[in-house]
Amino acid sequence: DSLSVTLAIGSGGKDTEDFVKRFILPLFKLRSLGGVGLEDMEDGATIPIGDGKHLVISIDSYTVNPPFFPGGNIGKLAASGSLNDVAVMGAEPKALMDAIIVEEGFPLRDLKTILNSMAEVANSMDVALLGGDTKVMPKGSIDKIVIATVGIGIAEEPLLTLDRARPGDKIIVTGPVGDHGATILALQFNLKVETLKSDVRPIWSAVRALRKFGDNLRSAKDPTRGGLAMALNEIAERSGNSIVVYEDAIPMKNEVRTYAEMLGVEPLALASEGQAIFVVDPSIEEEALEALRKEGYEEARTIGEVKGGKSGYVVLKTRVGGLRILEKPIGELVPRIC
Amino acid sequence: DSLSVTLAIGSGGKDTEDFVKRFILPLFKLRSLGGVGLEDMEDGATIPIGDGKHLVISIDSYTVNPPFFPGGNIGKLAASGSLNDVAVMGAEPKALMDAIIVEEGFPLRDLKTILNSMAEVANSMDVALLGGDTKVMPKGSIDKIVIATVGIGIAEEPLLTLDRARPGDKIIVTGPVGDHGATILALQFNLKVETLKSDVRPIWSAVRALRKFGDNLRSAKDPTRGGLAMALNEIAERSGNSIVVYEDAIPMKNEVRTYAEMLGVEPLALASEGQAIFVVDPSIEEEALEALRKEGYEEARTIGEVKGGKSGYVVLKTRVGGLRILEKPIGELVPRIC
Ligand SMILES: Nc1ncnc2c1ncn2[C@@H]1O[C@H](COP(=O)(O)OP(=O)(O)OP(=O)(O)O)[C@@H](O)[C@H]1O
Ligand SMILES: Nc1ncnc2c1ncn2[C@@H]1O[C@H](COP(=O)(O)OP(=O)(O)OP(=O)(O)O)[C@@H](O)[C@H]1O
Ligand SMILES: [Mg+2]
Ligand SMILES: [Mg+2]
Ligand SMILES: [Mg+2]
Ligand SMILES: [Mg+2]
Ligand SMILES: [Mg+2]
Ligand SMILES: [Mg+2]
Repeated sequence: DSLSVTLAIGSGGKDTEDFVKRFILPLFKLRSLGGVGLEDMEDGATIPIGDGKHLVISIDSYTVNPPFFPGGNIGKLAASGSLNDVAVMGAEPKALMDAIIVEEGFPLRDLKTILNSMAEVANSMDVALLGGDTKVMPKGSIDKIVIATVGIGIAEEPLLTLDRARPGDKIIVTGPVGDHGATILALQFNLKVETLKSDVRPIWSAVRALRKFGDNLRSAKDPTRGGLAMALNEIAERSGNSIVVYEDAIPMKNEVRTYAEMLGVEPLALASEGQAIFVVDPSIEEEALEALRKEGYEEARTIGEVKGGKSGYVVLKTRVGGLRILEKPIGELVPRIC
Repeated sequence: DSLSVTLAIGSGGKDTEDFVKRFILPLFKLRSLGGVGLEDMEDGATIPIGDGKHLVISIDSYTVNPPFFPGGNIGKLAASGSLNDVAVMGAEPKALMDAIIVEEGFPLRDLKTILNSMAEVANSMDVALLGGDTKVMPKGSIDKIVIATVGIGIAEEPLLTLDRARPGDKIIVTGPVGDHGATILALQFNLKVETLKSDVRPIWSAVRALRKFGDNLRSAKDPTRGGLAMALNEIAERSGNSIVVYEDAIPMKNEVRTYAEMLGVEPLALASEGQAIFVVDPSIEEEALEALRKEGYEEARTIGEVKGGKSGYVVLKTRVGGLRILEKPIGELVPRIC
């Protein structure tokens, strides 16, 4: 056939999921070393290493345009992103790998800044660089720089997989959502970005703060591409429950809402790169919020809860009291958000 | 300063090594989970998992141009390459991860072929796909497709690190070198590629065939970017020895030699993507060659030996009886060889 790759396939939303399920999963052996494998489509995969411990590993590539933006750069993003994907499995980040693909003629000074930002993130968590790769593509054959990173961590059980959410559980978010997505969107549309900036940062400290609740911390997720909308749908689907969230409880900066309105996009589908969503037993809701605030996540809030009933549905109670289904994002407005 | 990234930084030769040592290693914590870390600059890093076993992990990105070439495509290359890097540490490949970065408009059929080739390599070794990532870049911002892969394997000790080579050890190569490099070079220069084709393939079966020799199998290496010249220099340097190789013992196809001459490049710096170099105790030289031939590596040959004396030197005994220092390749003639 004469079909070709669309931007939507790279959106991180429903189209990406469909592509992976249709064109990749059927070709490969999936379950491997006895842990969480690709068929679960979690943030990371795991390899049991004895004593109830798991090595957790995750890969992402970063193509963000522009590579420097308010709040960070592609290096900070690439290191934080893959380490966050292992953190939301419940793993303490331990090691990082990087594959840099850079355009001939890219300023060496900028590359140094990017590498420094990667190192700053890694060093802040005592994460070691295990290895990497460096390729240069001729001028014009790649736009500036792309970085793939692998995050590696070690988790004790329980792993925070998404199937663990149960009816009655509360859904907590660490802070305002959509900052990263709105910032990059605004930059790509040449809108003035004033106080708005990307939230990119490691979120391991939030997971760590809640690990002490043991089994009562059920699941965790970083709402990156596809935003809160995609993340909540994945939790609902994977756990076989429905989810209700309250629009007026979802922390979001006014500017983010404004940009989303201006550009006609669903604000809840905008990527966050420095927030986490947690599913917790209702018995620890208040303590969990307290623990997050103490750790510096001052705007942590409960935004909804897990319900039984129809599996895989996310219902948004709107500000005006209505109900609307919050779908998995479809299509792609702008690429290279992360 | 106003320096910028050169193609040489991505050559896989001396310039890459200098870049990594100068701009990356000093920024990061290197030794991590108690195994082989980045400071050793081996093909892969290791994480001990008890019982004398190590998880071995390696990352590479693949930018080869063109993505389809005689003998394979970028998918076969990306899967083989990272699994070969763990194999040469002595590890049995177990899992793979992939990050695909593809240009909007890339033919879906070609992407499917590439994915199929990746899967074929993985399935041939019972390797599972553990996870991945998919990004699409807008038309014009990346030339066709880039794939980063991570290879993961499990090794029993001894790990085949390059520091283990000792004076007297023999150096064996599994077959003719430079086929991949010569093929891609010829394609990029619009030369006619007739019977020449890339040698890309997994080389784990060669390593496996020699594992039974235990400690007498010292080291292994895949002579990819920088070719035999880079690989031998790394062995000499890391082990603190010199190496002598005999030009007339090095298997190389006539066409490869011809293309190298036409283009004025050092044929021994041309990448192989389906050969391995082994360092073995002289007592097992014949048995090792026999084992390799039985495994299908029919052109396996001894090409030289490790000597004491000046550390880090590779000396080539030429066909006409002369001696020449075989240096680490410098600069870069064409990029996107792999
Ligand atoms: N090319 C691919 N090969 C194998 N698995 C893939 C591929 N692309 C995505 N996946 C899998 O699909 C799932 C979702 O991937 P996705 O990249 O959307 O998650 P994420 O990394 O948490 O989000 P983001 O990339 O926005 O940070 C993961 O389990 C991932 O391993
Ligand atoms: N960007 C990087 N960050 C960290 N380490 C790097 C980076 N680039 C290269 N290295 C390290 O330098 C060493 C040599 O890398 P190189 O890519 O040349 O090896 P290779 O993968 O065996 O060869 P090839 O890439 O040609 O297959 C490895 O130890 C690798 O981990
Ligand atoms: Mg994630
Ligand atoms: Mg991610
Ligand atoms: Mg490499
Ligand atoms: Mg190698
Ligand atoms: Mg390699
Ligand atoms: Mg991803």
